[in-house]
Amino acid sequence: MSYKNVLIAVDLTEESDQVLAKAKHVAESDGAKLALVHVVKPIEHVYGGFGAVGLAGDFSAQMATLEQQAVSHAQEQLAKMGESIGVAADRRFVPVGSASREIHRIAKEEGIDLIVIGSHGRHGLGLLLGSTANGVLHGATCDVLAVRVALKD
Amino acid sequence: MSYKNVLIAVDLTEESDQVLAKAKHVAESDGAKLALVHVVKPIEHVYGGFGAVGLAGDFSAQMATLEQQAVSHAQEQLAKMGESIGVAADRRFVPVGSASREIHRIAKEEGIDLIVIGSHGRHGLGLLLGSTANGVLHGATCDVLAVRVALKD
Repeated sequence: MSYKNVLIAVDLTEESDQVLAKAKHVAESDGAKLALVHVVKPIEHVYGGFGAVGLAGDFSAQMATLEQQAVSHAQEQLAKMGESIGVAADRRFVPVGSASREIHRIAKEEGIDLIVIGSHGRHGLGLLLGSTANGVLHGATCDVLAVRVALKD
Repeated sequence: MSYKNVLIAVDLTEESDQVLAKAKHVAESDGAKLALVHVVKPIEHVYGGFGAVGLAGDFSAQMATLEQQAVSHAQEQLAKMGESIGVAADRRFVPVGSASREIHRIAKEEGIDLIVIGSHGRHGLGLLLGSTANGVLHGATCDVLAVRVALKD
């Protein structure tokens, strides 16, 4: 009945610390391994399909660079988080794509038995994780712990 | 960071045992107290507003009796569950009403810090808990653990 392999999905807001702390507590109780994931939205999902409307090549390249920067930034943040709570480098994931789909994919590939995500209480599950949190819950083939975080504002 | 007061929401299907076992494990790890809740749907929500269309008094009374029987049945089931995992009689709740609203109310009144509910994987969160599970997650002022249960069929 104990958890052996815990995946923490973070949105990289300040509130991620609260999710990490809770996940670490649960994992320590059970002696579970930890993994970290942050999913980067494809740039065309953030700013619409620029490519499709025939933008100049330069602009298109800048968009791709932005996405790559988001990935690099997330990798740095996950490295810091991973070091603070003991997640090996090869257990930190920064995929680009649909958050729920990528989280489910990694959960399956890594044999995860508990996904831990943040929730913002009355605002629903997450602002950034937001609409994807439902997807994570509904499609999950393992347990999901929604950690209620206090918003810092 | 540990849980002190865990509320287990059960739908009284066979799969409830899996939710109980997981909740018990988490509670034992943290030395938490347990509570149990099963929310009975008001009979008029199940079969439409019979009262409103001017049914004979006898039929209306039979409906009320059905609801009361559902409550009694749930109380018996919760008593069995409670005895098996050590939930005191005054910590077993069978309210009639909206599942998410009643679960949130009890969670607040009892100072709950973790709600544990069942999820049926690709069918989404529960069949009976079903659409209410989203409500439980979204409105919760505490953490929510969705336990993925294996369907027996």
